[in-house]
Amino acid sequence: MKKKGILSVVSGFSGSGKGTIMKELLKNYKDQYALSISATTRKPRVGEVEGREYFFKTPEEFESMIENNQLIEYACYVGNYYGTPRAYVEEMLEKGKDVILEIEIQGALKVKEKFPDTLLLFISPPSAEVLKERLIGRGTEDMDTINKRLSRAFEESLGVENYDYFVINDDLATCVKEVHSLIQNEKSRASRNINYINHIREELKGFSKGE
Amino acid sequence: MKKKGILSVVSGFSGSGKGTIMKELLKNYKDQYALSISATTRKPRVGEVEGREYFFKTPEEFESMIENNQLIEYACYVGNYYGTPRAYVEEMLEKGKDVILEIEIQGALKVKEKFPDTLLLFISPPSAEVLKERLIGRGTEDMDTINKRLSRAFEESLGVENYDYFVINDDLATCVKEVHSLIQNEKSRASRNINYINHIREELKGFSKGE
Repeated sequence: MKKKGILSVVSGFSGSGKGTIMKELLKNYKDQYALSISATTRKPRVGEVEGREYFFKTPEEFESMIENNQLIEYACYVGNYYGTPRAYVEEMLEKGKDVILEIEIQGALKVKEKFPDTLLLFISPPSAEVLKERLIGRGTEDMDTINKRLSRAFEESLGVENYDYFVINDDLATCVKEVHSLIQNEKSRASRNINYINHIREELKGFSKGE
Repeated sequence: MKKKGILSVVSGFSGSGKGTIMKELLKNYKDQYALSISATTRKPRVGEVEGREYFFKTPEEFESMIENNQLIEYACYVGNYYGTPRAYVEEMLEKGKDVILEIEIQGALKVKEKFPDTLLLFISPPSAEVLKERLIGRGTEDMDTINKRLSRAFEESLGVENYDYFVINDDLATCVKEVHSLIQNEKSRASRNINYINHIREELKGFSKGE
């Protein structure tokens, strides 16, 4: 019997390095994981590829997906829809792949409500100071944008208690291994092994009757 | 600031190999773990050493420990008291050591009630058949005793759902690594990092105000 995969949500401050962690995880353990691709009504940016960064949808297509219950969760940001298509996630989990959703806290909590055994991981830099330095170090944004990101990070930090694990990204390789280990360890959770436990119990019952 | 250690209970069927796993864990990561030694009113057997297998107590001494709240949990089996002395556990946790109690399910649940963040691990052989073979393979017990053990294993299996993790001991080295990883991963649990999360939050709040 093939075991179903683990559904995980990975969130984190912008600047936490979560994008890089996901890339490394998929590279290092590529047969193990499937990264869910979001659908959005936002227009593709230069270099973005349909089905790689996003599935690009018209508002009509997206609303039809909502109506037909084809999304696990969705939200509207700055006038655009973003959502997680259900079919891919369920198909991959059935195949035994561990599926990762890289979404924000509101989406994470909606997923956890629908699938209570979803593992919620939050990636954080070791300190706010390091986060600020990383954002400045990128050299792609002015201080005004960086301050907006830090302000947004504060808002994001308000929901972190709802996550299962708070993972500090100090060293990339260590952090990738830790995320992998957290997800793989979920497979030994007692609540995910009830069938197996019942099977052993029945066997023992037989033996103890001298069968 | 030194982090407090993780308190874990390791239980498992007799024949699950849990004793060997504990020995290997303490050998491989000896500065990390402290194994709690139980107190008992049972008489020492040949080869047992005070403070290694057990702390041997008179019934009066044991009852005085109960009265003075010096035990985390205790129980009476076949006319003898067995219990977990509190002082050692608390001292080791404060020092940052991960403390392991190797006790049975009733004790495990009592500890979890007093210390809700205790990690409960249950070790199982891959199947009841393997358990039976291991018990026979020891060659130290007759079939009657083995059947009693299997019957007892059935009773023990009834509480396994209350544990956090159900760890299958198929290969010893793999199992030791898994137990180590399960305990160490607990340190990233969000609920154990509330102070750290609050600290980052305060820092971010400062930054977002342009401090």
